[in-house]
Amino acid sequence: MSNTPISRFEPPRLEDLPKDIAERISAVQEKSGFVPNVFLALARRPDEFRAFFAYHDALMEKPGGLSKAEREMIVVATSAANSCQYCVIAHGAILRIRAKNPLIADQIAVNYRKADITPRQTAMLDFAMKVALQAHMVSEADFAALAAHGFSDDDIWDIAAIAAFFALSNRMANVTGLRPNDEFYLMGRVPK
Amino acid sequence: MSNTPISRFEPPRLEDLPKDIAERISAVQEKSGFVPNVFLALARRPDEFRAFFAYHDALMEKPGGLSKAEREMIVVATSAANSCQYCVIAHGAILRIRAKNPLIADQIAVNYRKADITPRQTAMLDFAMKVALQAHMVSEADFAALAAHGFSDDDIWDIAAIAAFFALSNRMANVTGLRPNDEFYLMGRVPK
Amino acid sequence: MSNTPISRFEPPRLEDLPKDIAERISAVQEKSGFVPNVFLALARRPDEFRAFFAYHDALMEKPGGLSKAEREMIVVATSAANSCQYCVIAHGAILRIRAKNPLIADQIAVNYRKADITPRQTAMLDFAMKVALQAHMVSEADFAALAAHGFSDDDIWDIAAIAAFFALSNRMANVTGLRPNDEFYLMGRVPK
Amino acid sequence: MSNTPISRFEPPRLEDLPKDIAERISAVQEKSGFVPNVFLALARRPDEFRAFFAYHDALMEKPGGLSKAEREMIVVATSAANSCQYCVIAHGAILRIRAKNPLIADQIAVNYRKADITPRQTAMLDFAMKVALQAHMVSEADFAALAAHGFSDDDIWDIAAIAAFFALSNRMANVTGLRPNDEFYLMGRVPK
Amino acid sequence: MSNTPISRFEPPRLEDLPKDIAERISAVQEKSGFVPNVFLALARRPDEFRAFFAYHDALMEKPGGLSKAEREMIVVATSAANSCQYCVIAHGAILRIRAKNPLIADQIAVNYRKADITPRQTAMLDFAMKVALQAHMVSEADFAALAAHGFSDDDIWDIAAIAAFFALSNRMANVTGLRPNDEFYLMGRVPK
Amino acid sequence: MSNTPISRFEPPRLEDLPKDIAERISAVQEKSGFVPNVFLALARRPDEFRAFFAYHDALMEKPGGLSKAEREMIVVATSAANSCQYCVIAHGAILRIRAKNPLIADQIAVNYRKADITPRQTAMLDFAMKVALQAHMVSEADFAALAAHGFSDDDIWDIAAIAAFFALSNRMANVTGLRPNDEFYLMGRVPK
Repeated sequence: MSNTPISRFEPPRLEDLPKDIAERISAVQEKSGFVPNVFLALARRPDEFRAFFAYHDALMEKPGGLSKAEREMIVVATSAANSCQYCVIAHGAILRIRAKNPLIADQIAVNYRKADITPRQTAMLDFAMKVALQAHMVSEADFAALAAHGFSDDDIWDIAAIAAFFALSNRMANVTGLRPNDEFYLMGRVPK
Repeated sequence: MSNTPISRFEPPRLEDLPKDIAERISAVQEKSGFVPNVFLALARRPDEFRAFFAYHDALMEKPGGLSKAEREMIVVATSAANSCQYCVIAHGAILRIRAKNPLIADQIAVNYRKADITPRQTAMLDFAMKVALQAHMVSEADFAALAAHGFSDDDIWDIAAIAAFFALSNRMANVTGLRPNDEFYLMGRVPK
Repeated sequence: MSNTPISRFEPPRLEDLPKDIAERISAVQEKSGFVPNVFLALARRPDEFRAFFAYHDALMEKPGGLSKAEREMIVVATSAANSCQYCVIAHGAILRIRAKNPLIADQIAVNYRKADITPRQTAMLDFAMKVALQAHMVSEADFAALAAHGFSDDDIWDIAAIAAFFALSNRMANVTGLRPNDEFYLMGRVPK
Repeated sequence: MSNTPISRFEPPRLEDLPKDIAERISAVQEKSGFVPNVFLALARRPDEFRAFFAYHDALMEKPGGLSKAEREMIVVATSAANSCQYCVIAHGAILRIRAKNPLIADQIAVNYRKADITPRQTAMLDFAMKVALQAHMVSEADFAALAAHGFSDDDIWDIAAIAAFFALSNRMANVTGLRPNDEFYLMGRVPK
Repeated sequence: MSNTPISRFEPPRLEDLPKDIAERISAVQEKSGFVPNVFLALARRPDEFRAFFAYHDALMEKPGGLSKAEREMIVVATSAANSCQYCVIAHGAILRIRAKNPLIADQIAVNYRKADITPRQTAMLDFAMKVALQAHMVSEADFAALAAHGFSDDDIWDIAAIAAFFALSNRMANVTGLRPNDEFYLMGRVPK
Repeated sequence: MSNTPISRFEPPRLEDLPKDIAERISAVQEKSGFVPNVFLALARRPDEFRAFFAYHDALMEKPGGLSKAEREMIVVATSAANSCQYCVIAHGAILRIRAKNPLIADQIAVNYRKADITPRQTAMLDFAMKVALQAHMVSEADFAALAAHGFSDDDIWDIAAIAAFFALSNRMANVTGLRPNDEFYLMGRVPK
């Protein structure tokens, strides 16, 4: 399996990368112990790479009303609805780690309605799925349902923006045939 | 989590079970080290339990042109299409073990078209998904496509019957809220 | 038409059948005056035949909160949603007889929402259709709606199990191209 | 059942009808032995009644490359796809009579792909269903497929126009809750 | 572009038209300054032409509880749902003129839920879309929702009938490849 | 209409904007004569604004195998499939200008299959729509179909990335209720 290409589109050679991109990739490698394939595959297009990760970080790393685990729940649920192998498997790993819960990612990927989550989180995912699958039907009733669970307007923007960003990400991963790194499958499953 | 009910319908007490059912449950516990929840949940209805497992064994345990791992691939792919948490997680575990492959179940659950399987197995799963999702459209062209990959008429019956049996199983698990045992999540993921 | 094969898969010769299966077929022939094709087609696989009819009888013949006509309503409505010619036509006949109503089967097959049934039966079929078509969306709200019509938890299991069993049955009939016997079309239509 | 209203919208009294409409209704009663409910229900709107039946007759009664039975096949198949009780049951009766075949209507209503029809008729119904369900996808490839079965451009117009007219008719019947007359259910089923 | 055929089916020559049809076409040309292509394309079938325009006029030109602009809203919304280029573009023009609003047609064509219309008009279009897309699900709850906005039973018939008539019209335009006249695109956009 | 809010989320005051964002907005105003509402609405979130427009420019403004008009065709077709009012109307205007064709945007928005475009452009839009609606089904056959029309692998990435970026953009516009500026409706429709 180690010889399987990571994407249908050949990634650039590391030595050919612009400096800022090479540095970002080094940093993630140092932190994670490996380079998630999405970094290599998108590096084929430096400007898109920069915009993609700037957008990602603006949504996933900033402070806000949603916990980091909750943001990953949105990624896993909507990426499963889009049948995106890379995102479900990679972000499933991140979700397990951030939620400190080895079961949650598989539960949410298959059917979040039956996962071990709170009613507030179910409402969050109901809305994220509506954004992913039929955003044109979103109405004031959806905002009211979220407000009843204590979500602010900015929280709602965050939920929508994460679902929307992974609508982009899932499509790119599916078209490019982006392969999840083998490392992701076991991450966060075995208690340390 | 250990106190979460295994099903929306209360399972019978072990001591109240008919003898043949109690014996089957003992046997599986001895073999697996735990009792998969499907056995306890269905034991609420002894006649249905007997028919269910007789049918299951007739399809999954008998000899035939499909390997046991391939049969589990059909279960995982179609159960994911039906968003059945119990079946994806429990049979994902069995698939990992039977295929001796820690990655295959997650790949197939999310998008079998991009899994590490052979073209013959992809054709098998294309057909299984058609049986699961739009069996009324099955035509001679589907039989011909399978025959071109070397599947016999009896193999085709097997593929269809497994997809059909889990159409039943997925629906019962979804309605009863059947919870996958915690043990399944990690099974077959760590090389021994 | 009498020479049209009853199934895409050649049925076994009667003289080759295991004794228990031959006896079951004789019994049904004696009772009905003909052998419904499903018995012959499934006899190709004796173990599956036995499990199939054991399951069928456990759901359709036992006592319970649903009348036998109501169980056949579930079969007809969900089989029509699955475009299963054999099940709609054969069980339509049985429904006409059990309900003593020559119109009810055609009404339910096309649009049960406009059939001559009670609101309780409409609620029953709403749920059966949800089990047939999107069981993963079943939630406590569905159980509450049924309870409001007086259905017990065991009745709800029965509705779900019948819809689930015919999810299996419809798929097998569609894949095998199972042909309804000519006798079914007129049964129960002409007052005696 | 004889007291069930024929439509959600009260039909006009026969004595209040414009003369031409009263005559048309008398004529059909004389010919059929009863008045199909569609005549009474639409008479509530005389101008729409006249346009409706003028359109109907222009498509269903004129000479052309499609036999009258074939035209009724299109009605039954597309009306079943639209879950229109009135049209499936009433035109099912007409189809049985015109095709002199007591089985054909039920077969086509449930799944025309498995009905006792010719490959040419299957191609005709494939196209009619595409017109009924996704006309915006019709392309030159569809015309070529029909031409290969000997359909002329005017035959293709006829197939499309019948499917389109019953798209209208099915919607009106569904919204008005138009009830099929009891007489239709048995018509054409019993050999004379 | 001026040489692009107006339809996949060759229209008749003007000099060959029956007198009543020629006169209708002359009248519309005098009034509009050009002949909308639907008149030429349908003239290929004089009887269908007559029934089509009689039906059209009975619904769109008569007095009633819906304003003429509201009727065109129904046409534009449902025709967009059916991806009918001719009807969206031609009736979009008529809607702009009748509503004296240069923005409304494009808004409704893309997503009527976000158009500059009243809640009553939104309810009207919700129902029209249900008739267009899933008329078999229409129930008393839909009638009650419309009544709450002041729509009478006859208004509801009108909404349904317009949606149903354009279900027919959209399908014919899509199958015949009916081309919108260039004149429609700009009509009603520029204040006079 | 001039008092209608431009978004459900209140946009920031211009004087509160970070300098780089204020400058970008000034520049677009100078060039276009007005500020498209998307700039104001997204400015509520400066980091997301920067990433969004960096991504947009990387895809829409760079050189490449697709003409600028073709890129806008992709935006209009996929945004119509997502029922996104802002994107269809705003990018429809840009498409009319870039293609110097006053008809093309409306044609593509309603049904690109019947628009005045080349077979190569139809193939491009077929693929873009697959990316927008079912990217998980993209396979080597899609790449081959595009290659047959002369598209390079990098062109295919561009088509996919534009469809994916507007999957994000459409969802944000739909959730935020982003209103198209009145100016867009008429742009590019009147020959100068």
